[in-house]
Amino acid sequence: MSKKNNEKLSVFALGGVGEIGKNMYVVQYANDIVVVDAGLKFPEEDMLGIDIVIPDISYLVENQDKVRGILLTHGHEDHIGGLPYILKQLKVPVYGTKLTLGLVEAKLKEANMLGETKRILINADSELQLGTIKASFFKTNHSIPDSVGVCLDTPEGTVVHTGDFKFDQTPVNGQYADLHRMAEIGRKGVLMLLSDSTNAERPGFTGSERSVGAELEEVFRKARQRVVVATFASNIHRIQQVIDAAESTHRKVTVIGRSMVNVVTIASELGYLNIPEGMLIEPEEVNRMAADRVVILSTGSQGEPMSALTRMARSTHRKVDILPGDTVIIAATPIPGNEKFVGRTVDELFRLGANVIYGPGSVSGVHVSGHGSQEELKLMLNLMKPKYFMPIHGEYRMLRQHGLLAESVGVDKEDIFIVDIGDTVEVQNGVARRGAKVQSGNVLIDGLGVGDVGNIVLRDRKLLSQDGILVVVVTLSKQEGNILSGPDIISRGFVYVRESEGLLDEANRIVTGTLNKLMNENVNEWASLKTHVKDALGRFLYEQTRRRPMILPIIMEV
Amino acid sequence: MSKKNNEKLSVFALGGVGEIGKNMYVVQYANDIVVVDAGLKFPEEDMLGIDIVIPDISYLVENQDKVRGILLTHGHEDHIGGLPYILKQLKVPVYGTKLTLGLVEAKLKEANMLGETKRILINADSELQLGTIKASFFKTNHSIPDSVGVCLDTPEGTVVHTGDFKFDQTPVNGQYADLHRMAEIGRKGVLMLLSDSTNAERPGFTGSERSVGAELEEVFRKARQRVVVATFASNIHRIQQVIDAAESTHRKVTVIGRSMVNVVTIASELGYLNIPEGMLIEPEEVNRMAADRVVILSTGSQGEPMSALTRMARSTHRKVDILPGDTVIIAATPIPGNEKFVGRTVDELFRLGANVIYGPGSVSGVHVSGHGSQEELKLMLNLMKPKYFMPIHGEYRMLRQHGLLAESVGVDKEDIFIVDIGDTVEVQNGVARRGAKVQSGNVLIDGLGVGDVGNIVLRDRKLLSQDGILVVVVTLSKQEGNILSGPDIISRGFVYVRESEGLLDEANRIVTGTLNKLMNENVNEWASLKTHVKDALGRFLYEQTRRRPMILPIIMEV
Repeated sequence: MSKKNNEKLSVFALGGVGEIGKNMYVVQYANDIVVVDAGLKFPEEDMLGIDIVIPDISYLVENQDKVRGILLTHGHEDHIGGLPYILKQLKVPVYGTKLTLGLVEAKLKEANMLGETKRILINADSELQLGTIKASFFKTNHSIPDSVGVCLDTPEGTVVHTGDFKFDQTPVNGQYADLHRMAEIGRKGVLMLLSDSTNAERPGFTGSERSVGAELEEVFRKARQRVVVATFASNIHRIQQVIDAAESTHRKVTVIGRSMVNVVTIASELGYLNIPEGMLIEPEEVNRMAADRVVILSTGSQGEPMSALTRMARSTHRKVDILPGDTVIIAATPIPGNEKFVGRTVDELFRLGANVIYGPGSVSGVHVSGHGSQEELKLMLNLMKPKYFMPIHGEYRMLRQHGLLAESVGVDKEDIFIVDIGDTVEVQNGVARRGAKVQSGNVLIDGLGVGDVGNIVLRDRKLLSQDGILVVVVTLSKQEGNILSGPDIISRGFVYVRESEGLLDEANRIVTGTLNKLMNENVNEWASLKTHVKDALGRFLYEQTRRRPMILPIIMEV
Repeated sequence: MSKKNNEKLSVFALGGVGEIGKNMYVVQYANDIVVVDAGLKFPEEDMLGIDIVIPDISYLVENQDKVRGILLTHGHEDHIGGLPYILKQLKVPVYGTKLTLGLVEAKLKEANMLGETKRILINADSELQLGTIKASFFKTNHSIPDSVGVCLDTPEGTVVHTGDFKFDQTPVNGQYADLHRMAEIGRKGVLMLLSDSTNAERPGFTGSERSVGAELEEVFRKARQRVVVATFASNIHRIQQVIDAAESTHRKVTVIGRSMVNVVTIASELGYLNIPEGMLIEPEEVNRMAADRVVILSTGSQGEPMSALTRMARSTHRKVDILPGDTVIIAATPIPGNEKFVGRTVDELFRLGANVIYGPGSVSGVHVSGHGSQEELKLMLNLMKPKYFMPIHGEYRMLRQHGLLAESVGVDKEDIFIVDIGDTVEVQNGVARRGAKVQSGNVLIDGLGVGDVGNIVLRDRKLLSQDGILVVVVTLSKQEGNILSGPDIISRGFVYVRESEGLLDEANRIVTGTLNKLMNENVNEWASLKTHVKDALGRFLYEQTRRRPMILPIIMEV
């Protein structure tokens, strides 16, 4: 009995609070750890040269024997994208619904890891006993089918994780959020709710995906030439609606962009897309068909530089050109940080003579969010009636707003835990408090390197990007203590060399002068010579240009 | 007479079409050139290390003897910020209203150019004869006082340039847009209208600045502690309303941030700000005063990393800390591209316990735009009734939308000229057509360098920022044809060197092997040696890391 009282429930995030993306949440009771999601995020603008960012999972690796599995709420990159990296260090089973596992398997196959990973198919009715923790699920609405919330019954009480969700009262696939099961869970009692905060700043209700379908059909019908629709590759509901609108307006659809082709293939194989026979055509066929019989479904809704839409807009796509009079629909809202890229793509499309439909979904009518707004967040809170509340999935300000929403529906302020990654909330004998911090952070992936680019490398990249570099090389004689060759000065990213000969000649004279003076004074230690050269040259260049390039003095000795 | 018929009117932009900012427009008739505005813009994210961007004015410099002057519409940076650079090459008089010239003079003083620049004060009733071109003005509403539109009567007809404008029916300074003069100009006949497209994508009317005042007062009244208001330094109407709201809620105001202090000083000296005696306090006094008696007026509404608000949010401001319970008002909308910076600042402020009022003006109530929305743009078009129309001030998509608005009020499609910088529209005998292109472009300023950073330097900075640099140095013997010293490999921004010794050792062996092999084959030309080293090393590093650092082989010979 006394042992029982010492056990505690611990809930924390390794990613996904205080940031959008990289979602990973951990629920631990005694020796049983359950992980929810394993996402990646894209680098911040100060992470130069970095490809993607995953959570630091040191805590899980250290406690590997306790980790009972990773439960996936849905198949978006920010929830499954970290798996190929994480499963290399953490050999644990992965649980997901059919579509989610389908997307995971494609990912693992590409990473040559399919064989070594235990994958367990679940559905919304599954129940799993993961040590002392019993996991069950409930269906939710989101911008990808087969999304679930997770209910974890622990000896200390029930923890509910909503996953990403909205309440769509008219879902396009007829799969309603399971209000009844949520009500049942809430009735039985929820100790702690972790709920999606992405749209916590947005008043009201998020529109139904179905509203987009009618608008798409209207645009398709009016268009006299080809229609291009750019949206998120993973938004299978949207893709279905594009296909439906194409069918009812007698158009054929071609799919462009690697990720879009992948998702359409997997989703239709698994039965999540209903594509009439003969509806899909190859991109090569587009030019042979009447313009008003074609829809091009494409990636690039975020203006990503290498995406299909961006290449079409720049007339550099191998297969498809935008022609004057084509209609381009950007059926997505720019993710913060991407506004400029999207704007530029729209500009290019207009220049080509296209009619572009873009802007916030509320204006364009061709996009709705996959995340619930304030009224839906309150509805979830009222269904679950949690004792404790932890807003998840969002920047700090969104977590904060979600906290205020929870207060507004009656959750006590001191029962709301707004946490950073690594902050634990511990519950023992029904009482929650903040516990010790566990190791957490960003692991940066650059090429094949996982975590090998740290602050020093990033600082150097930043410096190099601002004012470039000057390399100063000189060969000295070990015996004579004089200059045998050089100094040679090579610069990159600093000034246009051909127009700056005078400056660089003078720089050369300063280096020679500095070295000769030092060597005459019998200063011969490399470190000292280098420091003096760096200082003298840096001072001179700053005076002349107000720039501070990185200066790399290299002394060779023969 | 035959000579007269050969003369033509030419209108073009050297900046400000197809881009926000860097505004500069040129109207030329025969040997008379009038320039409207001389702005700067801030660098795009691919212009690494660049401080600011100004227009290429080669055309004006080549025709210096014809340039009659630069007319300034108002005192914002994107209309006057290029002057210190431009006036170095172009010795022409500058015309502006009182506040505009006040701000220009502060700028020229800082650049030590006040003495050499001819400045001519105008007001909305001024008339100037600039060669064959007669310039007059009309008052407009904008987010800075003393804004005017420009009316240029030429022998070919009248060209109107609106400057930045909105129609504020209840302006806070009682200075109404001069509807009557605009009507008069329109009645007499306008050949070509150049009109502000900034908000051409936005339906309806822009709100009155006055609506912000009531909201500010309400927030000030409710706040129990200090209030921080961040807004654009140049928004003098907003600053006046902060001062008014402070007065009516018995608070004192302190001003923080260099540009805010400058503007407040100039505007109050010139009578554009009405500040009650004793209202302003020094930042040092803030901590000594009761928290509910203080307003802090600050820069940083765009989350700029070095601004006063950002430093307060990060608790690194020298004089002012944000305390739990303080209210922070961000009275501005993020400029596209700045959303993430503003978001981060809001996050930090919330973390400090502040109550933050932020978001689009339509939600927060504490901001309205200074630019007219679609209904106001149509009103301007209907007042001026131009024969030809050229939308200005905006990205291409905005110019396009403005063109559609013009069509909707009856301008013929073929009389609408959507142009890029350097595209000329020529009018001769009443007929407009596109003419030859004049030289135009971006001049990048980096430190003291004006235009010396070009594509090669930027490309190198980009490369350096992504995967860093490896410098490979080796000293060869001229006689023996062997390696005397090295190869030494120094890297920056590539990998963390201490953890990559094996990789760099192997790289070293590859360089040595490549050089020895070549020299045994009597390949001795440096260029060839360098190329082989670069290729072999590049291949090896890409295989090992999937990164492509810049490789700089340097061969010294003794």
